[in-house]
Amino acid sequence: MQVYEAPLRDMRFVLHELHGDDGFGDLAAHAEFTPDLLDAVLEEAARMAQEILLPLNAPGDIEGCRIENGVVRTPAGFKAAYDQFREAGWAALASDPQWGGQGLPESINKLVEEMICATNVSFSLYPGLTHGATTAIEGHASDDLKQAYLPKMVSGEWSGTMCLTESHCGTDLGLLRTRAVPQEDGSFRVTGSKIFISAGDHDLTDNVIHLVLARMPDAPPGVKGISLFLVPKFLPNADGTLGNANGVTVAGIEHKMGMKASATCQMNFDDSVGWLVGEPHKGMAAMFTMMNTERVSVGVQGLGIGEAAYQSAVAYARERLQGRALGGAKRPDLPADPIIVHPDVRRMLMTARVYTEGCRALGGWVSRALDAEKASADPEVRARATDFIALMTPVVKALFTDLGYESANLAVQTYGGHGYIREHGVEQYVRDARIAMIYEGTNGIQALDLVGRKMPARMGRNLRAFFHPVSSFLDAHEGEEAIKPMAQGLRQAFGALQLATGMIAQRGMKDPEEAGAAATDYLRLLGLVGMGYCFLKSARIAGQRLAEGTDEAGFYKAKLATAGFFFDRILPQATAAFLAIKSGKRSTMALAEDAF
Amino acid sequence: MQVYEAPLRDMRFVLHELHGDDGFGDLAAHAEFTPDLLDAVLEEAARMAQEILLPLNAPGDIEGCRIENGVVRTPAGFKAAYDQFREAGWAALASDPQWGGQGLPESINKLVEEMICATNVSFSLYPGLTHGATTAIEGHASDDLKQAYLPKMVSGEWSGTMCLTESHCGTDLGLLRTRAVPQEDGSFRVTGSKIFISAGDHDLTDNVIHLVLARMPDAPPGVKGISLFLVPKFLPNADGTLGNANGVTVAGIEHKMGMKASATCQMNFDDSVGWLVGEPHKGMAAMFTMMNTERVSVGVQGLGIGEAAYQSAVAYARERLQGRALGGAKRPDLPADPIIVHPDVRRMLMTARVYTEGCRALGGWVSRALDAEKASADPEVRARATDFIALMTPVVKALFTDLGYESANLAVQTYGGHGYIREHGVEQYVRDARIAMIYEGTNGIQALDLVGRKMPARMGRNLRAFFHPVSSFLDAHEGEEAIKPMAQGLRQAFGALQLATGMIAQRGMKDPEEAGAAATDYLRLLGLVGMGYCFLKSARIAGQRLAEGTDEAGFYKAKLATAGFFFDRILPQATAAFLAIKSGKRSTMALAEDAF
Repeated sequence: MQVYEAPLRDMRFVLHELHGDDGFGDLAAHAEFTPDLLDAVLEEAARMAQEILLPLNAPGDIEGCRIENGVVRTPAGFKAAYDQFREAGWAALASDPQWGGQGLPESINKLVEEMICATNVSFSLYPGLTHGATTAIEGHASDDLKQAYLPKMVSGEWSGTMCLTESHCGTDLGLLRTRAVPQEDGSFRVTGSKIFISAGDHDLTDNVIHLVLARMPDAPPGVKGISLFLVPKFLPNADGTLGNANGVTVAGIEHKMGMKASATCQMNFDDSVGWLVGEPHKGMAAMFTMMNTERVSVGVQGLGIGEAAYQSAVAYARERLQGRALGGAKRPDLPADPIIVHPDVRRMLMTARVYTEGCRALGGWVSRALDAEKASADPEVRARATDFIALMTPVVKALFTDLGYESANLAVQTYGGHGYIREHGVEQYVRDARIAMIYEGTNGIQALDLVGRKMPARMGRNLRAFFHPVSSFLDAHEGEEAIKPMAQGLRQAFGALQLATGMIAQRGMKDPEEAGAAATDYLRLLGLVGMGYCFLKSARIAGQRLAEGTDEAGFYKAKLATAGFFFDRILPQATAAFLAIKSGKRSTMALAEDAF
Repeated sequence: MQVYEAPLRDMRFVLHELHGDDGFGDLAAHAEFTPDLLDAVLEEAARMAQEILLPLNAPGDIEGCRIENGVVRTPAGFKAAYDQFREAGWAALASDPQWGGQGLPESINKLVEEMICATNVSFSLYPGLTHGATTAIEGHASDDLKQAYLPKMVSGEWSGTMCLTESHCGTDLGLLRTRAVPQEDGSFRVTGSKIFISAGDHDLTDNVIHLVLARMPDAPPGVKGISLFLVPKFLPNADGTLGNANGVTVAGIEHKMGMKASATCQMNFDDSVGWLVGEPHKGMAAMFTMMNTERVSVGVQGLGIGEAAYQSAVAYARERLQGRALGGAKRPDLPADPIIVHPDVRRMLMTARVYTEGCRALGGWVSRALDAEKASADPEVRARATDFIALMTPVVKALFTDLGYESANLAVQTYGGHGYIREHGVEQYVRDARIAMIYEGTNGIQALDLVGRKMPARMGRNLRAFFHPVSSFLDAHEGEEAIKPMAQGLRQAFGALQLATGMIAQRGMKDPEEAGAAATDYLRLLGLVGMGYCFLKSARIAGQRLAEGTDEAGFYKAKLATAGFFFDRILPQATAAFLAIKSGKRSTMALAEDAF
């Protein structure tokens, strides 16, 4: 069964205890949000997710979306849930108060997103895409457009989309064909077909605001000729009420592996009225504002599903009686022991647990940087935050979704045959999680972004925003008895990462295919070091709390156990990644193309 | 799109070139089957799979099975395909000629199975389960039962099942509740409910012969009180025609993640007439005869799906135009390069290719042992074959299905967003492949079987059947210039495997949980060494052929490239597995049960 209780204690640990000394300040600019207030928000969010979203998750998967009279219908209950969600203000949590948002820090918003994704990742896309679209409008649109659209989008009354992909181009948007013809009144007429448009149409809001990549007639070829346009489904009147339909139609919805309650639409724009967002031919920059926000959020999808899958697996492992503990019966009163006694079942549960805790901790660090970038009074901190976010965005996207998928698979494996059956609900996690490794740029593209752009950028300055705190922490604390063996593990993996960085930089300069062949392993290596750093810090804090005496000894002991498992059982993957990188591109490129 | 062309050249390589000196002889006992004849069988099988089974694979997934008037209906076309399959003799390929089989060696049968699984794994279960059931009947049933059932089962006129699992017990069959009450005429009356019965009911054959695990009234508790019974759906008359229905009903079919054209049934036996197969209370032994056969076949499912997924990914990577090669455009005549030029795409394709070639090669070695065990004139060879099969059965089952699943996922990733959409057909491979890691004993159970039973058995004699050829080959050839770096890699991994074996043996003696905590990593380590051995041998043969001069230089060069990728990029996983094993059970068992 799908069970979920928001991991509030661990979330508070990440929020309040883990990242205070990581260089991005103490949420100081958000001083109006006291820790107590933030905790109360988390508790409310947990209730909302558990009570409103979770019950719709499995039924939504079974029912799916459908088209009725040219309009997409979401599964039963989604509209009511969305109304509750919106009316309680969850849609506007992190948005700018200028547009009606609540202005909460990303450090809290990303934890709420995690809960939403854990309980109903299909649902999460509707407000999620809207949030991405408002970010792009805020960053790039004219004041008129902002005034006309942001209040209703921030409140969730209208939703948003990102219309990028066409059937012949996803990664390579330079090939796109949708046209935008300028009109005398300054507007444009947009014509073309887009595919894979999440929340492209649905029955949750009255209007859908599309952000559409298209070419003007005079556009240069390739990505340098793409502009971004705002194209509403219905044209708003001057008073904000809805006017005429705008030639935006949904041509079909996709039959997908999962995420069935999220409508993935083929959209046709037929001479639709649109307005330019940002500069002509600079649509890619505006699009990346939206995309980068979304990439971190997609990472959070992996984390959320991983946590839900983990919890569902634990519940089953406690309850399913099968066999006896290898060292002798643990529950002789029962016909068999619960399977959680078996080391190999614990291996699976611990792996999933470590992945979610590790990603949550690393994600919390990135959220802290997102807040500092926006709100820190110190320009140096803001700049460092920008560097760090640039570096970590592809890592969060790819690492979290890879590991979330693995956790979902471990949950199915824990259930055995029952995991393969729809009614138990865990195979849905696998199907739902699979897309997160693909959309918003495949994980391979994230890895190329990391090694090809983020790593070399500005003489490695992005990397320093990550290497420096890791290195300082190790220098300061690796001798401490309580964490010594773990610190040695991290030191070694960090050394491998530094070596690999040098190798890739050097080889990649002469031959970019060398960087490309190393990319995926390098991203994993960097992610493992990032998680290892968080676990080492966590273990140190836990050790201190336990030494001081605490009435939460159970929590801190568990944190030590989780960190121990990470260093013993997960971090060794770093060695394999390093060896693969070291071998270079040779064997990846050796096979003749026609011999595949 | 799902495309598949049987990899006949690689199959012939495994069949004729790779395993001649691996200690199990040269299929000598099957001398009547000349290499030319075997190759002709492979070609015929390829045609059958490609032309009859493949076209039904995607439609079968969409339509699925359903119950109509108490009978399971398979998807459109399955009955006609099964008739063709059976009439052409494919059902009886490896069965004993005494019962109407063609008696072909397993070395060829497993390759044919691979093709069937690659093109329609749902279909494969109908003849596959029958084959498992006939094996158990041949090995354990009375002559009367054999005479009455084997000819019609071997011909495929009747099908078979394995009725083991009940809702509260899968792995732990000691808990099962189905009852068998002896009758005066020597028959039994069987009553109980079974779940997850593949091919439990369907419309492909006139009769279904169930092999049912049940308890007699006087049975001791646990697994020592389980007996095996043959229970037909319809009771045959003395003349072989079908008589009365036998109280066997299908209570429902499961809604599964995949394998939708394979009916997974809940079966009720209500005072059904059955006959004992084998000794009373020794049902587990008879069941394992069937189960071990099936375990190797389930491994082959992983291999087959992996190959099909790989080929589908290659086809897409050749055709999908997106971006330019990192080193400059490769196809300036096209709007973009095909994505196969990108190193990270090649990494995915090469990984899947190496997994399938590696598993096929290792599987070929095991098939050779299966043939030698049955047919070798030399009792020492037969004994060694038995040892080797015992050791490798869990490895083939778990390793091949893990890697097949990974290959299916790599294919989806290669397709990007299109891979997530049903119409492209590759997400089906992921859904279909997922169950193979679970059924016939989860992969975790396979690993426990390996470390808990197969490894320590008879003072490590099973292991020696594997270690000895690896060690001899390295001793004899590791100095050869052409394969030196690969041989060093294998020597190192083999050393780690030997060390790990010693560690587990020593620690596991004092504490079986130590063996349990190491099991999955140990199985992977052993599997990697096994594949490495096969790749090293393959590379050596390829090098020799190329040096001698050959008109198949393309094939042998590709083999060298594949081997190179394995040693550079895949074998490093052995280090991670070794380090995880070395860390012991501590961190796996550290977390308090209530802290999960």
